[in-house]
Formats: sequence, C-alpha cells, structure tokens
Amino acid sequence: MPEYKAPIRDIKFVMQELLDCDNHYQKLGYEDASLDMVDAIISEAAKFTEQVIAPINQSGDEQGCTWTNGEVTTPDGFKEAYQQYVEGGWPTLAQNVDFGGQGLPHSLNTAITELFSSANHSFAMYPGLSHGALATIEAHGSEQQKNQFIPKLVEGSWTGTMCLTEPHCGTDLGMLRTKAELNDDGSYSLTGTKIFISAGEHDLSDNIVHIVIARIPGSPEGSKGISLFIVPKFNVTNEGETSDRNAVNCGSIEHKMGINANATCVINFDGAKGYLIGEVNRGLNCMFTFMNVARLGVATEGVAAAEASFQGALAYAKDRLQMRSLSGVKNPDGPADAIIVHPDVRRMLLTQKSIAEGGRALIAYLAQLVDIGHASTCEEEKATAEAKLALLTPIAKAFLTELGLECTSHGVQVFGGHGFIKEWGMEQLMRDTKISCLYEGTTGIQALDLLARKILGSKGKILKPFGSEVTKFCLENAEDDAMQEFIQPIMSFGGDWQKMTEKVGEKAMQNPDEIGAASVDYLMYSGYLTLAYFWAKMAKVAQDKLKEGCDDEAFYQAKIKTARFYFQRILPRANGHAACVENGAESMMALDADDFSF
Amino acid sequence: MPEYKAPIRDIKFVMQELLDCDNHYQKLGYEDASLDMVDAIISEAAKFTEQVIAPINQSGDEQGCTWTNGEVTTPDGFKEAYQQYVEGGWPTLAQNVDFGGQGLPHSLNTAITELFSSANHSFAMYPGLSHGALATIEAHGSEQQKNQFIPKLVEGSWTGTMCLTEPHCGTDLGMLRTKAELNDDGSYSLTGTKIFISAGEHDLSDNIVHIVIARIPGSPEGSKGISLFIVPKFNVTNEGETSDRNAVNCGSIEHKMGINANATCVINFDGAKGYLIGEVNRGLNCMFTFMNVARLGVATEGVAAAEASFQGALAYAKDRLQMRSLSGVKNPDGPADAIIVHPDVRRMLLTQKSIAEGGRALIAYLAQLVDIGHASTCEEEKATAEAKLALLTPIAKAFLTELGLECTSHGVQVFGGHGFIKEWGMEQLMRDTKISCLYEGTTGIQALDLLARKILGSKGKILKPFGSEVTKFCLENAEDDAMQEFIQPIMSFGGDWQKMTEKVGEKAMQNPDEIGAASVDYLMYSGYLTLAYFWAKMAKVAQDKLKEGCDDEAFYQAKIKTARFYFQRILPRANGHAACVENGAESMMALDADDFSF
Repeated sequence: MPEYKAPIRDIKFVMQELLDCDNHYQKLGYEDASLDMVDAIISEAAKFTEQVIAPINQSGDEQGCTWTNGEVTTPDGFKEAYQQYVEGGWPTLAQNVDFGGQGLPHSLNTAITELFSSANHSFAMYPGLSHGALATIEAHGSEQQKNQFIPKLVEGSWTGTMCLTEPHCGTDLGMLRTKAELNDDGSYSLTGTKIFISAGEHDLSDNIVHIVIARIPGSPEGSKGISLFIVPKFNVTNEGETSDRNAVNCGSIEHKMGINANATCVINFDGAKGYLIGEVNRGLNCMFTFMNVARLGVATEGVAAAEASFQGALAYAKDRLQMRSLSGVKNPDGPADAIIVHPDVRRMLLTQKSIAEGGRALIAYLAQLVDIGHASTCEEEKATAEAKLALLTPIAKAFLTELGLECTSHGVQVFGGHGFIKEWGMEQLMRDTKISCLYEGTTGIQALDLLARKILGSKGKILKPFGSEVTKFCLENAEDDAMQEFIQPIMSFGGDWQKMTEKVGEKAMQNPDEIGAASVDYLMYSGYLTLAYFWAKMAKVAQDKLKEGCDDEAFYQAKIKTARFYFQRILPRANGHAACVENGAESMMALDADDFSF
Repeated sequence: MPEYKAPIRDIKFVMQELLDCDNHYQKLGYEDASLDMVDAIISEAAKFTEQVIAPINQSGDEQGCTWTNGEVTTPDGFKEAYQQYVEGGWPTLAQNVDFGGQGLPHSLNTAITELFSSANHSFAMYPGLSHGALATIEAHGSEQQKNQFIPKLVEGSWTGTMCLTEPHCGTDLGMLRTKAELNDDGSYSLTGTKIFISAGEHDLSDNIVHIVIARIPGSPEGSKGISLFIVPKFNVTNEGETSDRNAVNCGSIEHKMGINANATCVINFDGAKGYLIGEVNRGLNCMFTFMNVARLGVATEGVAAAEASFQGALAYAKDRLQMRSLSGVKNPDGPADAIIVHPDVRRMLLTQKSIAEGGRALIAYLAQLVDIGHASTCEEEKATAEAKLALLTPIAKAFLTELGLECTSHGVQVFGGHGFIKEWGMEQLMRDTKISCLYEGTTGIQALDLLARKILGSKGKILKPFGSEVTKFCLENAEDDAMQEFIQPIMSFGGDWQKMTEKVGEKAMQNPDEIGAASVDYLMYSGYLTLAYFWAKMAKVAQDKLKEGCDDEAFYQAKIKTARFYFQRILPRANGHAACVENGAESMMALDADDFSF
C-alpha cells in the first residue's frame, strides 16, 4: 500500500504562486482566508488525511460495506474517522456562517477535497454527497426548510444524497417514474425505486437527507414534469430534530468494481413523506444549478487518483532494482539499477506527474471561478467567470477522469506483476477511479454537453472569455524567448481548435450526428490544449522565480522540465484526436445495428 | 453477465477466406486438417466454451481460489469442466502423435484458444501453462524425460507451470537465487522461492510439472549461469507414473485485481528433486525458444477480451433505451431510442469490433507462421516466417493487450453506471485482462524487445520480409480505385515508419536512452500500422467476394465499413505516437530521480 503524503508544496505553488489566492480572496471579501489561515488549514488537512483517512483505504476496500435488513454497516474505522471529521469541523469549512459554517471560500475546500479523495476515494464521497444536498436546499429551499435541514448537514451530524437514477433511466431523466402525490398537509408521498444512490444508507450519521426527483401525477411528460423533493430518512420536526422513521428503505447495495467502502444503494420510497423544493416541475433546473460544482468534484477525483498512483509508482521506481540502464550503470554497488533510470518507466511517471500537477492547476483555477460566482459583487466579472466555468467544467470532468484512469493504469504497470496484486494498493486506485468516468454524466455525456449544448448552443460565444485569456497570455509572452517552446504550440493547436470548431459546426447543420461523432475526440483535444495552457502558465511562474532568485531552485526547475515533457510527449496526442474529428461521422453511422455482428 | 457466443463466422472468414488455411495446411502436410475437420473442431470448441466454460466465468471470479495448508481449491465447477476438457481430447489437439497427440496444426489450436480465453480467462490459463511446460520438455528434454512426462501432459491428466520470477527479480532473471545442487544420482536438489506461478497449485490434475530456472552453485553470475529443471509435484517413476510427494509446496496464493479463478502461487522448493533439461547454464536460451509462442498466447487474450466485451456492449446497446437520436427519432413506439443510435456509443462499439476482428486476423497470421516453423521443409520459407514472427510477436503482444484493455474499458463505458456493477460482468473483463499487459513481459519490455533487440539489433534486417509483403500488397492494389482509401494511408504511414526507424537508430548511437524513450510509442505506431495492413487485406477479400456475388453480402459490407472506421478513426492515433517518438528522450531524462516530487 503506497503511503500517502499530501502534496503541500505543489498545492501552495498552485494556489499562491500561480493563482495568487491571497489577492483573489481579499478582493472577494474572504477576509478570514489569509495566507496563514490557508497554510494552516492545508497542513491540518494533510495531517488528517495522511493519518486518519488514508490508513482505512485499503482495509475499507477489502471489507466493503455490508447490508443487513435494510441497514448498512461501513467498514471498520469509517464511523470513527467520520466522527473525527465532524469534530474537526471539516464539513463546516466553506459553509454559510448563518447555518454554522466557517464561511471560507469554496476553492479552499476544493484543494482539501483532493487530499481526501487521494487518501480514500470511498470515504471522500460521503461528505461530497452531503455537500450537493445541502447546496440544493440552500439555493432552492424555503426558509423553513433551510432552518430545518441545513444546520445539521453543515455540522455533518446528518448526511445527504442525490436520488436521480432509476433502473430504466440514467442519462435520460425524463423517463423517470417515481411519483409524488400531494398530501392534505402540503407534504408529498413519494413512491418509487432509485438506484445507484451513493451513500444512500450507512451508519455514519444520525439522519440521511435525500434530495429526490419525482413526478407529480398530471405533470407534463419528459423532463418538464420533474419536481424536486427533500425526503429525510427520519422525519424532522419544525425545530430541526429527528422524529419517527420515514418510509425510505435501502433495498440492497451493489457489488462493484471499486469504491467498495462507499455504499451504492437501491433506495425504495414506499409512500415516504417528502417536501417540495422550489417550484413544481422545475426540479431539473434546480439540479442543474449544482451540476458544475458536482462535476468539478468528480474532476478532482481524477487528479487525486493520478496523484495517489504517482506517489506509489515513484516510491517503487526509486526502490526496485531491476536491469541496468542502457546508458551505463547507475548503481554500481547494487545488483541492478533502480528502475527509475529506465526511460519508459520515466515516461509513465512523468505522464502521471504532468496530469496530476496540470490537473491540480486547472481544478484550482475553476474553483476560483466558483468563488467569484458565489462572492463577487461585479456582474460582469460573474458572467465571465460563469462562461469560463461552463466551458471548462465538462472538459475537466471528462478529460481529467479519463487521464486519471490512464495514470492509475501506468501506476500498475510501473509495478510490473506486483501492480496486479491487491497488497500493493495500485490496482485499487485503478478500480476506484473508473467510476469517475461514469457518474455525474459519462465521458460521452460531458462531450455532448461541451460541444452541443455549450459551444454550438451558444454559437461559439461561450469560447470567448477563456479564449481571450489564453490569447492575452500568449501575446504577453510573445517576446519571451524562453517561453516560445510553450507559446508556439498553444497558438498552433489553438488555431486548429478554432477551425475544428467552425468546421464541426458547419457539418452539424447538415447532419446533427456529426456532433456526437466528433464530441469525445473534440473534448479530448480541448483537454490536452487546456492543460497545455496551464502548464505554460506554470512554466512562466517558475521561470520568473528562477530569474528573481529563490531557495527552491530544484522545485522550479522540475516544473519547467515537467512542462517540457507535457508539451513534447503528451500534447502531441491531440493530433490524433484532431484527425478523428476531421474524418467525421460517416464511418461511424454506416453500419446497420443488425450488422455489427454475424 | 454477457452471454458468450463464439464468433464462428468471423473465424472462418479469417482462416479460410483471408488466410486460405486449406492450402496452407495441405502444403505443410497437415492432411487431417481438412476444411471439414477445421469446421467441425471450431464448432465443437464453440459449443464447449459457450456451454461449459463461459458459465463458470463469473462465479469463478466471485469465489476465487482458496488456499488451505498448501492445497489450492479451484472455484465450483472448474474441476468438472477441466475433466470434460480432458475427456473431450482438447489438450491433445495440436500435440505430437508420438505422445498421444492429434498432430493438428498450431494455428487451429490458436483459433480455439481465443474462444477459451473470451469465455473464461482464468480457466484458459490452466491448459495454456501446461502447453509451455510440455513444449519446453519436447524441445530440450532427454528421450527419457519426454517419455516420462509428455504423455500425461498431452493427455491433460497432468498440468505444467513455468517457474521464473522470484520476489526480487522479474524482468531481470539474471538476479535469481534459487539454487540447484547436484545429487549423487544425477538429479538436483532445488532450494528457493518462486512467486507469481500461475496454476502453480490446484485440484484439477493428478500431478503438476514445474519447469524451473535455477542456478547451479559455481555457475557464472547473471543470465549466463541459469539452468533449467523439471521439478514435479509428485515424483515420477521411469515408466511415467506418479510416486511419492516431492518437496515442492505452495506457500500462499495472491489476492489480485482479476483472474481470481486462476491460482497465482508462491512456490517453495525445499530441496525438491529436479532434473536438468538441456545443457548446464543454457536455461535462458531454452526458455527463449518458446517466448514467441507464449507471447502470441497472451496477445490472443487481448483479442479475446476485446471480443467478449464487444459482445456484451453490443447486446446492451441494442437493448437499452435512452435519449433520442440527434438526427431524428428511430424508435417511435418506444419511450426512447436504443443507445446504439448514438454516434459516441458506436465509436466505442466499432473500436472494440475493429480491434477484435483486426487482432484476430493478425493472430491467425502469426499462428500460421508458427505452423511453418514447425512443419515446413523449406529452410528459406522457415527463415522468412521466423523473421516475421520475431518482428510481429512483441507488437501483437503489447499492442493487442493494451488495446484489449482499452476495449474492455469501453465496454464498461457503454453500460454507463451499470458497467461498474459486478453483476453485468463487464468490469470483470477489464480486471481480468489487465494482467495481459503485465505477464510474459510488460508492454515496456515488449517495446524494448522490438526496437532494441529485434530491429536495431538486426540493423533493420528483420523488417524486410514483412515490409516486402506489405509493399507487394500495396503494389498489387495500386490500380484498384476501391482500395485506395486503404492503400494510400498504409504507404504514407509505412514511409514514415521507415524514416522514424532510421532516425531512432541514428539517435540511439549517440544516446542509448533514445531507444527506451521511443520504444513504447514506436511499438504502438507499429501496431496501428500493422493492423491497418490486415484491415486492408480483409477489405480486399470482402470487395472481391462482393464482386463475385455471394449470399453473405451484409457480412462483407460490414467488413468494408469496419475497415473504413479503422482507417478513419483508429489509425490516426499513430500520428500522436510519431510526434512523441520524434521529440526524443531529452524531456524524459532531464529530471533527477530526487526531483520528481517535493
């Protein structure tokens, strides 16, 4: 099992040196988020995740959750760790002070989320889901609902879920069947079955607050007839205390490829009491408010997995002696050289490193945009931030989770046959992280969201704010010789991106299937280019620091070298995706469904 | 769990129509391998794998093997299935008639191996390992050893293993420590520990014949001091019957990511009686004889995984209703369209299909080269076949297993969240097939074998026989308009391949690390190009059949359309790999080992 160490130095580089979080927080009025406070919180989170959360990752996978008569028991140590998590005040960090939160910025919480997810993907999901439920009630609930439900969710003594999927409908929520019938007292009775409810039932908290989408009889068909409800496991008094058990039951839990310590539940609503949130039939709109934040959370899991796998692989590569370097013996006193001398091992390690660090920068940047959405008083700044966030969120979600999966596969590969053995913990990372390519919208769905809904849907307008930022950066560095190895490729790939987008748009007017045919390759191209921009920015910061003179020279040199690796060995993959986009839909649509197999 | 159906129609297409196995077998003197016989054997293998082997795949994964006091119990049904396998005469198929085999060609056995591996990767490994042990004894054993050990291995009542790896040495076998001391009677006493011994202990057979590499005290250090031994679990009389227990014990079994129904054992030799095979200190050379055949077997697993995952994903994509086609409703009577209408689902299915079918053709071609090596009487033909096989085996092994893994990941993805649930069987395929990228030499090792040992080691000579074949095919079809969409890219990518090879060779003379830095990208490029050649050949056969007129028009049209998909949507990936090769070693070697992390 690789020992997890929070990458504190790199987080500080990203937050403070790359993204100047101090200025960012002060401008937005987050006065408590001083540099000292940020440092202290990250250090504490590092300790907590390293010492409390990481040690129950492997045992949690082995043991899994168990279901007995509707009750779910989490693996040994989870209850105690969750208790410590609540006592440490972690759930309150970025929550509203009116409900007992600390009112710190979202982006600080996001930085910490990566640590939890690297240390223990399954554990990190419990608070993650609560956050979605809480945010939904805060944005769309009535004052009474907020007072009833939010304080305990903020505190962490209650947890939450999002109940969307049913057996016959995942992506296509318009097909849902769970029904909500109005009671005389203004509440609703919910009846139906939801599946894939993460953290749907467990023994960590005193109550579980389900946010459920359902159909009120007589509503329009499809997605325009969906309403949103709060359905607590235990009913709640007006004062916000639990009372009797509601008719919500966990029918079973799934046996899965990974995230075994997080209970994925079938939840049955048998006339359960529920409370409408927001307006009738506007449920999907309420959900969409938080889609970006939830997807950013999953994107973070991709980075977290790449980081955890990198740490394991790096330690092994320095320790494992096997074969001699082709360019001459490096460890003459040992029976062989450490495998980190071999170029192909380095290729895998540097792929992991460049994705983890580049992805970390992208996520931190997006989290700052979320801060602006929450706290800025300038409407123009907010609109710009929202456009960037809307564009980059599906890219981050799909690209970073796909690359996260690839990185965990490299982690197994660096270990050779040992990587396949559970004991080393490397294969668990691969099994756990595959879910991130699936939930909160698969890679294919993110790609459609990006290309169809966001880019073509806005006739390209949505590209402008981020496009201008990238162009500005390139122009600012146009005269800097040391930056040309990064600036030139961005300009070239960026120009092609624009042409590709226009071309797909034109083709889509003739044949809408061109969108779906291009979408994933288009998204991956966009992802490689976006990360190139962040690597170029990081290289720039590092070059400036080295020019200024600093104690930390090796760190900044490593940044520049890793940026170079990214541009030389990762970015070129975008070419293959461009050619696939160029080649269009025809070869994909030509086969009749009956002719795929004979 | 996807129901497995052997792809009989496609196997016949490859063997008979693409590779004219009838003529091939008759020329080599395999008189029994008539078309009727080939058909009958494939049909029987289809029935057996579908009805006996596939049904215990998922239960085998769930249950796994269990170790108790040195004894290993395979999952329910494995013993009975193996018994049926032996009674059906399957192990004897391609074995020497002198030892009770049926003397049928290796390539026929390879075709069947794919079915076993698709149906149940873990099960298929038991006979697979036996074959390696048997072949080693047949090639290098004494007459007495052959008579003692081979008949029971052919029959299948005994099984075999290959014991190479030790805890501190995998790739670097020169470091091995297991020692073999000469006894007075000419036998040896072996002492040491081997790990990762697949099928090292189990309850399927009456005896287990371990082929073990060990060092005789006083031998040269490194790989020149390794000798090869037969070490049976039960000692064997001169007449080839089992007698008393040998001092070989299974210390434990590994808990793994996948192939849970195949026991991966720690085997302890505590002064176990062993018999030298071949000459002292020539053990590694003996092992290398079969490396190509064993690697071809693993390459087949990649194809088998892609095929099995394709079958599951295709059935689901036709059945699952979700969302409407962007180009208009396709299933007006249903609540949504089947997801096979969506272009991105087709992208994943066609990727699986083009890799499974293209890979099948490559494997079948390589298996015919093995036939030629076994049975041809023409030395020139043999030499040509061996050169092609040496070149293409590492490509097939690494490329097809990496793509096999990708295809199983697509299979999970087509199922959405359901793909992550064990019940559907899609995630098992992904877990099981990851091992194929690791054992028999990782992807990185195959790539070094290809580029360093084979291509640069032969100064490019090894490329000629296969290169000439491809050129000949391109020239033959240079005037055929309908073939230009396939011929032109092969010529173009092929030309770049040649230049890339020369350039890497030149750079490697300055810096040997250039080889390792280029190797995996070079291999992947080679893989995409090689498969393009086989897809072009298949398209040609299909076009000819359609010109001639045939009953099976849809089948041949599908071949051409799948070829087109491969050329338009898969082959372009090679561009990204070429750019990575071009960019060289510098960015990979620049970081000190201590500067990967701070």
